[in-house]
Amino acid sequence: MGEPGLAYAKLLTMKRTELFTKTSKTVPADETALNAKLLIRAGYVHKEMAGVYAYLPLGLRVLEKIKGIIREEMNAIGGQELLMTNLQPKAVWQTTQRWDDNIVDIWFKTKLQSGEDIGLAWSHEEPIMNMLRDYVHSYKDLPVAVYQFQTKLRNELRAKSGIMRGREFLMKDMYSVHATKEDLDDFYNQTIEAYKRVYDRLGIGNLTYVTFASGGAFTKFSHEFQTLCEAGEDWLYLDRERNIAVNEEVLDDAVKELGLSKDKLEKLRSAEVGNIFNFGTDKAEQMGITFADQDNTQKPFYYGSYGIGVTRVMGVIAELFADDRGLVWPDNIAPYRVYLVNIGNSPEVLARTQAVYDALQESGIDVLWDDREARPGEKFADGDLMGIPHRVVISEKTMASDSLEYKGRTDETPINTSLEELLNRLTA
Amino acid sequence: MGEPGLAYAKLLTMKRTELFTKTSKTVPADETALNAKLLIRAGYVHKEMAGVYAYLPLGLRVLEKIKGIIREEMNAIGGQELLMTNLQPKAVWQTTQRWDDNIVDIWFKTKLQSGEDIGLAWSHEEPIMNMLRDYVHSYKDLPVAVYQFQTKLRNELRAKSGIMRGREFLMKDMYSVHATKEDLDDFYNQTIEAYKRVYDRLGIGNLTYVTFASGGAFTKFSHEFQTLCEAGEDWLYLDRERNIAVNEEVLDDAVKELGLSKDKLEKLRSAEVGNIFNFGTDKAEQMGITFADQDNTQKPFYYGSYGIGVTRVMGVIAELFADDRGLVWPDNIAPYRVYLVNIGNSPEVLARTQAVYDALQESGIDVLWDDREARPGEKFADGDLMGIPHRVVISEKTMASDSLEYKGRTDETPINTSLEELLNRLTA
Repeated sequence: MGEPGLAYAKLLTMKRTELFTKTSKTVPADETALNAKLLIRAGYVHKEMAGVYAYLPLGLRVLEKIKGIIREEMNAIGGQELLMTNLQPKAVWQTTQRWDDNIVDIWFKTKLQSGEDIGLAWSHEEPIMNMLRDYVHSYKDLPVAVYQFQTKLRNELRAKSGIMRGREFLMKDMYSVHATKEDLDDFYNQTIEAYKRVYDRLGIGNLTYVTFASGGAFTKFSHEFQTLCEAGEDWLYLDRERNIAVNEEVLDDAVKELGLSKDKLEKLRSAEVGNIFNFGTDKAEQMGITFADQDNTQKPFYYGSYGIGVTRVMGVIAELFADDRGLVWPDNIAPYRVYLVNIGNSPEVLARTQAVYDALQESGIDVLWDDREARPGEKFADGDLMGIPHRVVISEKTMASDSLEYKGRTDETPINTSLEELLNRLTA
Repeated sequence: MGEPGLAYAKLLTMKRTELFTKTSKTVPADETALNAKLLIRAGYVHKEMAGVYAYLPLGLRVLEKIKGIIREEMNAIGGQELLMTNLQPKAVWQTTQRWDDNIVDIWFKTKLQSGEDIGLAWSHEEPIMNMLRDYVHSYKDLPVAVYQFQTKLRNELRAKSGIMRGREFLMKDMYSVHATKEDLDDFYNQTIEAYKRVYDRLGIGNLTYVTFASGGAFTKFSHEFQTLCEAGEDWLYLDRERNIAVNEEVLDDAVKELGLSKDKLEKLRSAEVGNIFNFGTDKAEQMGITFADQDNTQKPFYYGSYGIGVTRVMGVIAELFADDRGLVWPDNIAPYRVYLVNIGNSPEVLARTQAVYDALQESGIDVLWDDREARPGEKFADGDLMGIPHRVVISEKTMASDSLEYKGRTDETPINTSLEELLNRLTA
């Protein structure tokens, strides 16, 4: 009955001869970031200009899978999805002084035909608050948590990190409003746990640290989620024993407050993959937004903001796991889980490959069949470059022994297995 | 295993006390369009500024369901989904003269910090062609059909039609390239049939006409899909007998070419819900994009472009079916199919309502439970305003007769039925 998203989910299979995009040996001359180089070579993204990348079918599948994981975890803590706008009125940002280019230096702005200035979405903190004004009038309407997957535009001076720092990028941004400090604190902590589950499911949980960062007006510290990554732009100070991470900005403060010893801290390169921010009642006070509390007095909301850079985290994962043969996707977010290769084109080999293709689909496993007339080495190299986690080969030889050849993307050597064992392995 | 979109699909149930947004009796003073008035009052959209609307959870569910239907039909004819960018380089549009504000008068433009001009996506016809340059080199790479759901920004002088004409709106735009005129013509006709299936599934098939429109350089006529709608901005000339529709622009030409009689044509208000356009080889020639054909000569592509205004079609449906009590959604795209109402709050009534709620969910039917402590009339009015197609009521009275009360949104009177019959009705 037309449930949202189901049609996308049904697209489990694809043949290489039908897939739009092919792999390439070349990348644009101005591209320096490893993540973008690999994603361009493997046909996942197309560079439109510096810091601006289109997502081709393979890239969009990865993005949609990442979004699916984030969506589940945000829904699980009560977040409701909506979609704000890219065009934003000036007045909404003037109330907090953040229309000013001296205060926010990455605005893209444009004008209506009437000459009126409008802004392009670099954040939705103010527009969300302004929208909530119309729906939240009483403590009975609280708490509210809403989120979106939204294209953000930021006029970055430099954009040299591929999809890890774009001028245009996809963000999951959640916002919550609460009647009391305690309720916000509680939701803030729930979000920390939800974010940990997201990074676990994305395959980078063990490399990602909840990190003390600068807190702004209301709290001493905010929190970032930093993933250890040589290509990152940040520095992380890590106390492995106590499992506490601190960013550079607040190092001295955090050492004092948290009783850390500077000698024990490792300084490591990292990339920010998420951040959460407690505004207290500041934003509501600046914008003059209040609710009627139980005692019937008007009070400003408590406000929290929670971001995950969806395209950035895709870039970080691309950087982290890549090897000399190409991309390596974790199973959960690979565009297809299986790279199916037929060697030879005899009717028997093709029929057997088709049968495996169908069996994988029936088991709900997405599969890309390299059905091109190409040398086996060429097919293997493409599957590796694309980073598809599981490779399955059908040939006269495997058919003679009534088996399949299987190799995980990072395995050294292939093994022989049966279709049944393969399905067990992939549905376990 | 994290299939894209599945998480969204799983969200089958919601309680009114948990739903973000509530209905309202007021709309912004500057709002004149019926579709926007109703969508705002029912909590589907929030007006950010003239022609710019945010989609709140209910509105986003409708959009996602419409997208799901379109996606299935585009995939069925071989379209592959991708995602282009909002920021566009000037150079790509200069090759076809369309950077010029005198030629395209609805550009929003902005600047990089370096001072370089960039454009904001009002169309992707040129960027798609430019991207294809990198992937299509030979006749063996053809045909290609790619599509996206993309936010478009158009600097409209006036924006008074609600979500039927936005300055920011969601579009499905598909593009195809072909080696021969015949192959493009064939795909063009397949797209016409796919579009008809889309409008049928959206519930407006019987009101929507394939319409002759102005064809540009390559063909005498292009085609629009026009839906009869009093709030539309277009005029349609319809020969009901021959089932031929013509738009105003090409009326005289079409009468001549198609042998129509002007006297027989009805002049009707309509809204354009889709258009398809055959560029021939014009665009590829202007942009200097060629492929190596079988005879090894370089030739320009044949190019077609196919649009559906996703938010516009949502606005048209809102306008068309609304009655004096509010919105009326077709089953396929309602945010929830069932509006479940408990009358009274006895433990027995609540337990029974919960059981029906669960049974609907288990049958894959999405349901919004009005669990508020409110008068029955208030609950009924809200369900009607929101346009939920099926209303189910549980009360002491229905429990005494071991039944449910059921009423379709446009039915005059409710009937008594059983849970089993209800499930049969809704899963038929």
